[in-house]
Amino acid sequence: MRHRQIMRFEFEPIGICRSAYTDKFGIPRQPRLVTAAEARIELLPPYDREEAFQALEGFSHVWLVFIFHADCLEANWSPTVRPPRLGAQTKVGVFASRSPYRPNPIGISAVAQHGLERKGQRLMLKVAGADLLDGTPILDIKPYVPYADAIPEAQGGFAQARPEPRFAVRFSAQAVVTIAEQDPQDRLRLRELIEQVIAQDPRPGYMDRYPDRREFVLQLYALEIQWRLEGDCARVTRITPLTNSG
Amino acid sequence: MRHRQIMRFEFEPIGICRSAYTDKFGIPRQPRLVTAAEARIELLPPYDREEAFQALEGFSHVWLVFIFHADCLEANWSPTVRPPRLGAQTKVGVFASRSPYRPNPIGISAVAQHGLERKGQRLMLKVAGADLLDGTPILDIKPYVPYADAIPEAQGGFAQARPEPRFAVRFSAQAVVTIAEQDPQDRLRLRELIEQVIAQDPRPGYMDRYPDRREFVLQLYALEIQWRLEGDCARVTRITPLTNSG
Repeated sequence: MRHRQIMRFEFEPIGICRSAYTDKFGIPRQPRLVTAAEARIELLPPYDREEAFQALEGFSHVWLVFIFHADCLEANWSPTVRPPRLGAQTKVGVFASRSPYRPNPIGISAVAQHGLERKGQRLMLKVAGADLLDGTPILDIKPYVPYADAIPEAQGGFAQARPEPRFAVRFSAQAVVTIAEQDPQDRLRLRELIEQVIAQDPRPGYMDRYPDRREFVLQLYALEIQWRLEGDCARVTRITPLTNSG
Repeated sequence: MRHRQIMRFEFEPIGICRSAYTDKFGIPRQPRLVTAAEARIELLPPYDREEAFQALEGFSHVWLVFIFHADCLEANWSPTVRPPRLGAQTKVGVFASRSPYRPNPIGISAVAQHGLERKGQRLMLKVAGADLLDGTPILDIKPYVPYADAIPEAQGGFAQARPEPRFAVRFSAQAVVTIAEQDPQDRLRLRELIEQVIAQDPRPGYMDRYPDRREFVLQLYALEIQWRLEGDCARVTRITPLTNSG
């Protein structure tokens, strides 16, 4: 009965995620914490056809099954990881965590779906609340089936509590002006996005070791966003468009 | 920005599911509908170590990320499928369905976890309510995180309603005796398992075309289970141990 032979399974993506998260720092740790994060799943041929999504309009949410592709594909497997919410000191088993560094770096995220959009040859599924890096390969899209997928009474161990926003976020005059220049019609919901991303405390877990550091930087779209901690408040000091991007 | 090159990702299973479902007919259509279905995920080396599961005891449920391996790996991709609950006539898009026949035949199922069990060299994770065929390759095990994964208010389209048990199930004298012989200590919960599997109506969707058929057969463990429909009642007529199995 035991399978002794080595089994290998090969997958090709059905789509690519286009998101505001152009750098892994700043990505929220779970989906739907940053609701202003709108993203598009660009379907790759031969999956870029409307009929493959027929009847999806009745479902409010979908599962994205994706590859943690940034540096997770090359990383060596470790039996334990250090979840950011437990700080830099506490280890848990990799199969007791949602860490992207896992034997098979496959992620699942439940997100709101906002329908298909066709632009010329390209077919895209609009989603909101995704926690995926721009360029993430998507292996599958599945409807979220509440009776099968929602277990509100489940016990969530060390991740039971939903992380609450930690900081009130303020903007410098330069930041306000740059947001207005970069997103004049508020189509990217840029101000709200920056606010939600920083309010969640996007500092990596290892920042525990640098308690005196106050100045930070993150990237959204092709913008470099500098911010500083001032007590319980985070202040966006400067937003700088990156060149050769976009 | 568009990725033009073909991307391929290769995965090897971390474990194999050992379940009562030794044949694809009879498998419930979603996890946790048949709660008496206890299964074990046998971890493959090098993943068969307790520390990889440290802190999992705080989580009541896990996600199994698995391969639909039966005949789904060889099947050609089709943009539409016919979900059993809609009968044989209605098509929906493959990405609006949980069909196992999909471009990348990866499944996700949320199941209750009942801890690790070591038997000699082998390490197993005990789970309940799984809807996985015996021998299913497991790609990943993740803790179920209620604040991220449970969206009870989600709209579930054509799969909104949880399927209710359809039949009352009765057992012939021969069936009762055989269950007592095969599972004398009720460790397999065999009677309850058979009852729950048949109550859900395990007939495939294409049986719509054979409305007069009353006699059916399914397989659990190494047992062939014959049953017949008698009005709203299903009667288990005969249970036969299969030879050369188990």
